[in-house]
Amino acid sequence: MEAGREPLAHRPPSLAIAPLDEAARRAARERQAQLVKPAGALGRLEELAIWLAGVTGSARPSVRARVVVAAADHGVAEERVSAFPQAVTRQMLAVFLTGRGAVSVLARETGAELVVVDAGVLGEEPEESAGARPPGLAGASPPSPATSAQSDCGLLAPMRLGLSPSRNLAREAALTAEEVALAVDAGRSLAAQAAADGITILVGGEMGIANTTPAACLAAALTGRPAAELVGPGTGVDAAGLERKREVVERALALHGDGLRGPLGALRRVGGGELAVLCGLALGAGEHGLGFVCDGVIATAGAAVAAALEPALLPRLLAGHRSPEPAHDALLGHLGLEPVLDLGMRLGEGSGATAALAILRLAAAAHDGMATFADAGVVGRG
Amino acid sequence: MEAGREPLAHRPPSLAIAPLDEAARRAARERQAQLVKPAGALGRLEELAIWLAGVTGSARPSVRARVVVAAADHGVAEERVSAFPQAVTRQMLAVFLTGRGAVSVLARETGAELVVVDAGVLGEEPEESAGARPPGLAGASPPSPATSAQSDCGLLAPMRLGLSPSRNLAREAALTAEEVALAVDAGRSLAAQAAADGITILVGGEMGIANTTPAACLAAALTGRPAAELVGPGTGVDAAGLERKREVVERALALHGDGLRGPLGALRRVGGGELAVLCGLALGAGEHGLGFVCDGVIATAGAAVAAALEPALLPRLLAGHRSPEPAHDALLGHLGLEPVLDLGMRLGEGSGATAALAILRLAAAAHDGMATFADAGVVGRG
Repeated sequence: MEAGREPLAHRPPSLAIAPLDEAARRAARERQAQLVKPAGALGRLEELAIWLAGVTGSARPSVRARVVVAAADHGVAEERVSAFPQAVTRQMLAVFLTGRGAVSVLARETGAELVVVDAGVLGEEPEESAGARPPGLAGASPPSPATSAQSDCGLLAPMRLGLSPSRNLAREAALTAEEVALAVDAGRSLAAQAAADGITILVGGEMGIANTTPAACLAAALTGRPAAELVGPGTGVDAAGLERKREVVERALALHGDGLRGPLGALRRVGGGELAVLCGLALGAGEHGLGFVCDGVIATAGAAVAAALEPALLPRLLAGHRSPEPAHDALLGHLGLEPVLDLGMRLGEGSGATAALAILRLAAAAHDGMATFADAGVVGRG
Repeated sequence: MEAGREPLAHRPPSLAIAPLDEAARRAARERQAQLVKPAGALGRLEELAIWLAGVTGSARPSVRARVVVAAADHGVAEERVSAFPQAVTRQMLAVFLTGRGAVSVLARETGAELVVVDAGVLGEEPEESAGARPPGLAGASPPSPATSAQSDCGLLAPMRLGLSPSRNLAREAALTAEEVALAVDAGRSLAAQAAADGITILVGGEMGIANTTPAACLAAALTGRPAAELVGPGTGVDAAGLERKREVVERALALHGDGLRGPLGALRRVGGGELAVLCGLALGAGEHGLGFVCDGVIATAGAAVAAALEPALLPRLLAGHRSPEPAHDALLGHLGLEPVLDLGMRLGEGSGATAALAILRLAAAAHDGMATFADAGVVGRG
């Protein structure tokens, strides 16, 4: 299977993706050459500062980050491809909102805002924390999540999209075209709102029991690599579970066949609610001139669908970290992205990408705060 | 040449190195198993939290960090082994003190204190910023650098040890035994003071034109690897300079021969003032129950001399990052350390290790701030 273009009828009109600001990049590169250090001696920190300049259009850029955690459940869980029961998705949503999930803590520590989106989570939200469905999601911007539902200890309620959990992708299409459109548009609206709020960097995170299975399917559809190379243990399924998971992915790829050739078709047939929101979030980052930091295999799969739809998005993507999940490596290679961190993290939630924000902040701070050779009165090379 | 033990007469009496707190490590490991995530899913962040617990003796450890930048000049610079003139060492000291050096910015961003030590820098300090020589360095503690010489914009003056630049190690011993003892003791005193001030983590950084040459010599002496495998471009010497540098290292190894078999002998013959301070700082971290984060090739060479003297120090060492300088990789392998970051940084100053503090902080924050499965009411594996 090769990555292909969707028949025009199934594609949204081509979006206007903002190119990187070449003047800001050039100015940042010139500044790096003048900072009081041997050329290139800060390694990736220099590249990150220059990337950030291109993304933000500022030669002295700063990081104002928001982490969007999209959560959904997956019909394919009935194939027993995860070590955890589906109830955990909703429970973890509640944990994020108390500020005590991994991503909540990491976002706080890195000075990032946190937004949680229910993109089809199973079961009912507890009465006391029921969030209002944001008005006008189909097109209009949702209310600012930073102000509408945030308290000192975190967010009070997730943003609800009114989606149901996906269907079992090993038996039928996971989503309807309408569900895909709604979720992608919600992601794009979240990016629009972020841009309006002055955010420069979006992190895409996710929660969804069983969601490494759709991610592996999407990785297979986008990269053409066989399932056996892409399926990994996810949160820690045992050997029998891993074998089952590989078989499920192969069954899904055979079932959907040519329906996976276009990125939106693949997203509908073997994706999921959170994957579609993440795809939209990445597209929206491109439309509104933000940077998008990819987390692990699920968030990167969402971004890869977006980049397949709009290749001009690629320069705005940054790989926050490398996950040990094999499909992640395949997707990073496919996108040509080199991760900032390689810490063996495989939690999802946006945790790895949020950790990478700490390094991005250091890059911006060194770029902005260091003296130049000239203003420090330091002589150059001998 | 093999790493050997110094004849007893040349060694200080064996120091009391504090072992890691096994009870705190165990408690931290148990807590990690209860946090609301699949076991091991935070990867290296989990290991760092457990390491920090062992280092600090607290099951819920926190990072209180101080970066000590030791600076010195090197007689071997006359062999033209660096791309920069020696005047840069003193000039960079001044930059650190204005808060606009790379390490100054990174320390500020990661919430670490910064201490700058003149361990034999060439030339005179400018009148207006002349620092007082700390009293009682031979044995007693220096005054708290965090309070004695720090202003809002950084430190006002370096701590001076009264050392001269080293002699040319390709012609004679770089330091005298007295100079080694003074510098090592100064490093140990700085660690004692840090412990008294409530610091839990020390970062060793350095500045010294030409100091990748002594570091490569020490790496050869400690690891037994040939100079050709260890000599790299440092701050960016050209091909002819690189060849000269390799030849100088080989000449020094031949000249000093068996005199390099013991770690203190090697430090005296092919080390330098900042290398001796860093060795003492690492030893002091061991004596006073602190963690020591190794930066690049110079700081890691200093720590490797310390670990050769006191192997019990090893568990308190952390490799902050991997430098592209080949001797660094050899030293990390020799010490069995796996770096936290791999960002192509090769600036020294402590910059890579200070950047790693950001990740260490995230590890401690996640460890402390995450909910457990029990208190979040989340079900475990299915």
